[in-house]
Amino acid sequence: MAEQVRIIVCGFGRVGRSFARLLEAKAETLARDYGLEIQLHGVGELEGSVISPKGLAPAALADYFETHGGLGGHPEGGRPEWKGIDLIREAGAGLLVETTPTDIRTGEPALTHIRTALGRGMHVVSANKGPFIRHYRTLQAFARDNGAALRLSAAAAAALPTLDVAQTCLAGAEILAIEGVLNGTSNYILTEMRKSGRSYGEALSEAQRLGIAETDPTLDVEGHDTANKLALIANVCMGADLLPEQVGRTGISGLTAEEVHAAGEEGRIFRLVGRAERGPDGAVRARVAPMGLPRDHPLAAVDGAEKGITYTTDTMGRVTVVGGKSDPKGAAAALLKDILNIHRAPGAARSGRYS
Amino acid sequence: MAEQVRIIVCGFGRVGRSFARLLEAKAETLARDYGLEIQLHGVGELEGSVISPKGLAPAALADYFETHGGLGGHPEGGRPEWKGIDLIREAGAGLLVETTPTDIRTGEPALTHIRTALGRGMHVVSANKGPFIRHYRTLQAFARDNGAALRLSAAAAAALPTLDVAQTCLAGAEILAIEGVLNGTSNYILTEMRKSGRSYGEALSEAQRLGIAETDPTLDVEGHDTANKLALIANVCMGADLLPEQVGRTGISGLTAEEVHAAGEEGRIFRLVGRAERGPDGAVRARVAPMGLPRDHPLAAVDGAEKGITYTTDTMGRVTVVGGKSDPKGAAAALLKDILNIHRAPGAARSGRYS
Repeated sequence: MAEQVRIIVCGFGRVGRSFARLLEAKAETLARDYGLEIQLHGVGELEGSVISPKGLAPAALADYFETHGGLGGHPEGGRPEWKGIDLIREAGAGLLVETTPTDIRTGEPALTHIRTALGRGMHVVSANKGPFIRHYRTLQAFARDNGAALRLSAAAAAALPTLDVAQTCLAGAEILAIEGVLNGTSNYILTEMRKSGRSYGEALSEAQRLGIAETDPTLDVEGHDTANKLALIANVCMGADLLPEQVGRTGISGLTAEEVHAAGEEGRIFRLVGRAERGPDGAVRARVAPMGLPRDHPLAAVDGAEKGITYTTDTMGRVTVVGGKSDPKGAAAALLKDILNIHRAPGAARSGRYS
Repeated sequence: MAEQVRIIVCGFGRVGRSFARLLEAKAETLARDYGLEIQLHGVGELEGSVISPKGLAPAALADYFETHGGLGGHPEGGRPEWKGIDLIREAGAGLLVETTPTDIRTGEPALTHIRTALGRGMHVVSANKGPFIRHYRTLQAFARDNGAALRLSAAAAAALPTLDVAQTCLAGAEILAIEGVLNGTSNYILTEMRKSGRSYGEALSEAQRLGIAETDPTLDVEGHDTANKLALIANVCMGADLLPEQVGRTGISGLTAEEVHAAGEEGRIFRLVGRAERGPDGAVRARVAPMGLPRDHPLAAVDGAEKGITYTTDTMGRVTVVGGKSDPKGAAAALLKDILNIHRAPGAARSGRYS
């Protein structure tokens, strides 16, 4: 008999809908390999929500949203007046999947969603990093006090495993330093400059044309996004207490084609690297800057819009993880992973054919 | 209050003694960050064992062994007639750390140790891959039937995380293919051939002089070791049912300096790659062979005696892990990691300053 997990989803944008479709596509695998039946009991959106005590068909609900542009009019439990917060209070679910749009400054509405859910003992998995930029430590403590689990793999770098590598695969080792190539847009531009000899401006235009860079690329190319992610990862994995504004920051917009070319001649490859390191005083310091990495540095191979992270540890040496889908589907897969790891018995391997 | 975990260690070679020293060095961290007090209640060796209901000082015991060449005469609980199996039966421990020498063919004595421990409901962590080459599936099922956990991170690739990346960080994704650079000796030789232009024979001699290659390097350079590890990883992570002799195998001893040089001219780098892939019929096929990887392949950056593994998945894209200490200290760190992950509550983050 599969264990039943009742979930609700707040935010039904691209990540939320990808997650719903993934849930349906993976239902059989989850039952067979993990002994889990994940039931979708509601989805909350600003313009109306849907709730069903019988459980909703996830993929059909994503289709409905894409056709109707909202959920409030859904024939099976539409609630035009309800927002996500109402769903959290009323649905009686055991787990919240938080995928509302990220607000780095306030963390809302996700911050309120997550606090409310944890306060009711609900587990939370989040693709939204907003609430954790300033409140990771207090939210994690609040989760523990309420006997709930809080996981945010998808928020850190979608399907690239960063937090769970540090927390599970490097358990017992102290992480002395983190280096990350964490922004796909910047990395795409730098790769393009190196491979084609283009200027920064030309490579940016190309990235914008392809939909990789935004019209205003500031957050990506000036290192803000990298600083946000780096601070979050350092806070989770190194027990640091960094705010993004405490991360020193140099972007890539000042790099010239000549500098990139000259580095290449010396066998070095420019990446926008976020680096956090514990100093002799025990405090963690962090900085984002373009760095010319030698070709045999494991992050040198992280090409195009890919990402990667290197952990330097006391007892396990240096461990690097590279790759992982970084689109909404990758984020959805990371949300599902967090749910599975919350509901897995400690120490147990996969059940069924994997064990 | 720290949770107490009573452990015994079978095998007190370099890995076992490294583990004992690590246990002592990390005692404070384990109490503070994981809420665990790991007590060493006995160590078993062929030539005599030691057992103490009060717990033993791990580092002093390693010193004692190195001075006396055995444990049977230890003043505090030496048992000259006891072997590991007696300790498993008599010590009343909750967890076995298995680090006896590997016998790929029979799996003994570890196989009997592990079966006996699991049958008594003891958890097992193993740095010895021998028992799992032919019996992984039945041992894992036996563990589950007895409510015990069985983990073998250290057996697969020391501190390079392979199994737990697949099982935890890629949970919910199907692993379609594995590519691994899993043998440090072969990789050292290939790196040396590429960088110095040496022949295979010259590079091998250099590796032997440095203590990286054995006097008889067959197991490493002809791909047997890679095939063993690949079969094990595929069986654990892909639900395969491979025996090492079913893995096709081409070693590196036939590679000429000219071939390595020509590949370099084309921007390719030779690695001894173990590859397992699920075919259209659902069966997993595996093969070990030297491959000229393009420079931007994530395993191309795995230089010298380092290792790395790439997982190709259905929902998370391609994820590569590289690095990790591969010496006895790295294996010891992996054993400790497995113990921590067994004793961690599901979904819980690190306690203390990490949460």
